[in-house]
Amino acid sequence: MTKGALALLIHGGTDNWSPDRWKLRFEDVCRDRRVILMPATGVDPSEVHYAAVWKPVPGELAAFPNLKVIFNLGAGVDALMADKSLPDVPLVRVAVDDLTNRMMEYVVLHVLMHHRQELYLRDSQAAKRWAPKPQWPAGALSVGIMGLGTLGIRSAEVLKTIGFRVAGWSRSPRQVDGVNCFAGAAELDAFLRRTDILVSLLPLTADTRGILNRDIFAKLNHTSPLGAPVLINAGRGGLQNEADILACLVDGTLGAVSLDVFTQEPLPADSPFWTHPKVVLTPHNAADTDPDEISKYVARQIARFETGEALENAVDRGRGY
Amino acid sequence: MTKGALALLIHGGTDNWSPDRWKLRFEDVCRDRRVILMPATGVDPSEVHYAAVWKPVPGELAAFPNLKVIFNLGAGVDALMADKSLPDVPLVRVAVDDLTNRMMEYVVLHVLMHHRQELYLRDSQAAKRWAPKPQWPAGALSVGIMGLGTLGIRSAEVLKTIGFRVAGWSRSPRQVDGVNCFAGAAELDAFLRRTDILVSLLPLTADTRGILNRDIFAKLNHTSPLGAPVLINAGRGGLQNEADILACLVDGTLGAVSLDVFTQEPLPADSPFWTHPKVVLTPHNAADTDPDEISKYVARQIARFETGEALENAVDRGRGY
Repeated sequence: MTKGALALLIHGGTDNWSPDRWKLRFEDVCRDRRVILMPATGVDPSEVHYAAVWKPVPGELAAFPNLKVIFNLGAGVDALMADKSLPDVPLVRVAVDDLTNRMMEYVVLHVLMHHRQELYLRDSQAAKRWAPKPQWPAGALSVGIMGLGTLGIRSAEVLKTIGFRVAGWSRSPRQVDGVNCFAGAAELDAFLRRTDILVSLLPLTADTRGILNRDIFAKLNHTSPLGAPVLINAGRGGLQNEADILACLVDGTLGAVSLDVFTQEPLPADSPFWTHPKVVLTPHNAADTDPDEISKYVARQIARFETGEALENAVDRGRGY
Repeated sequence: MTKGALALLIHGGTDNWSPDRWKLRFEDVCRDRRVILMPATGVDPSEVHYAAVWKPVPGELAAFPNLKVIFNLGAGVDALMADKSLPDVPLVRVAVDDLTNRMMEYVVLHVLMHHRQELYLRDSQAAKRWAPKPQWPAGALSVGIMGLGTLGIRSAEVLKTIGFRVAGWSRSPRQVDGVNCFAGAAELDAFLRRTDILVSLLPLTADTRGILNRDIFAKLNHTSPLGAPVLINAGRGGLQNEADILACLVDGTLGAVSLDVFTQEPLPADSPFWTHPKVVLTPHNAADTDPDEISKYVARQIARFETGEALENAVDRGRGY
């Protein structure tokens, strides 16, 4: 009996990681299994037992009657969950150290940039102005991380090592060494009140859509050594109310923002974010996907599944992540 | 018998830390001792047993015949050592965790900025260009730290935690956990060959003056994932050959530089560093002095000295640091 095939449904990747290059990677690590890059001709959909997907078209997965597991090739599954015809089989998120560490690099870099007054220093250089301003140490600032999954915990660890005070907020209570943990709606205000730099690593769900709005920003620490609090969103664009962010930058509710994600990507050329002097903008590259690590991760999970072991990092469809 | 007085010789501080504010800090922590802010009238120079100095005028310290210890209110003593009439008494460097940690923040920030292609991304934002480029993980890069004193070791630790490969070079052999250590002239080339990002935290001595020059840059890893190697100098301006740095940026021997220090400070308005697109320039603010921590450190050292204990962090005048 032949092993069930693995179908790759990959759309909108970068030039560097085209569907063809993903296929080569998967063939390397699934040597005894057929790997099919969709769309393909001459494929019997009933042979496909596994699907590895990147932004699949809604309805595309429903075509495989014997599908057993879906693997999402990134951390966030919000786009997949919006597919009303998504087959009712286990859905697995990618959770590889490489992705976790890349996200931590992004968070640490952007926290340090705002902490060390990089926007001011950049302006000073452009104006040929040698004008150091007082600089507080990391221990004078509290970084608040919304979302205490793998990504949030790793970022918190390194920020602690550097010397920042670190708090975290999550839907259900968590305990993380050295991190002041808050949970649920009841503790959100207390979390925000102590936060100078707010880092969003939340999953996008019905509960979190638009959560980064004026109500939240107004509750941050407005006696911060930074002058005004800072937002860093490396989660999903759908988490943020972009009109509120812009208005809060204008009226000083926010001092600066780093945004890696947007409600529309690529960000349209007429977006005011491009040119706003208090916006540090990156093109959704906080945590690149590494096909080497991820294809190995998927192959390992399939092997586990076929020997009857539990899948790791399965999505709870009720929660949405 | 009254305790010997402490003279403060403080020049060229910032507005935030004027000599008067230093005096208040020292009076707080030396309550049973006279603290004299120089120049002052009605002072008998023979009463002065200790001097805490910041850029003193050459010859100024020779005026105190009973001087027992000189405390330098910063990490680098190169300016003091140039004073031919410097009294032959112990000279103590500041080594407080606050200063060490601030320098680490600077080093980690600038390593991450270059690693994460911040100059490219900044240009992309200015051009309204959504164009992510491939991003290697931290583990693909080797950071080489010249100078493995307290500052270098702390920076190395955090860079390791983030995931960079870290090497260090020092005059005499050192052992640092997880850091590939090289020492002396004989091992300099091997150290440079593996280095993608060179971080200079060296003291300025006769041996190190001008050490950051084309010979060194040409030996760095020119098959780096960064395209071309990067220099970060947070030590002293006198370490660097500025004409070589500019020429190496032009011909591609260096891909980018972060400079916190310059041979002339403030940097003159006509310096090409201000406007060069591959230069990240900061106004010698990598590691601000914190008067609270430093005044306590000096008071503690005086107390140790008067009970016959050894001074910590005394400068070896032969080495120059």
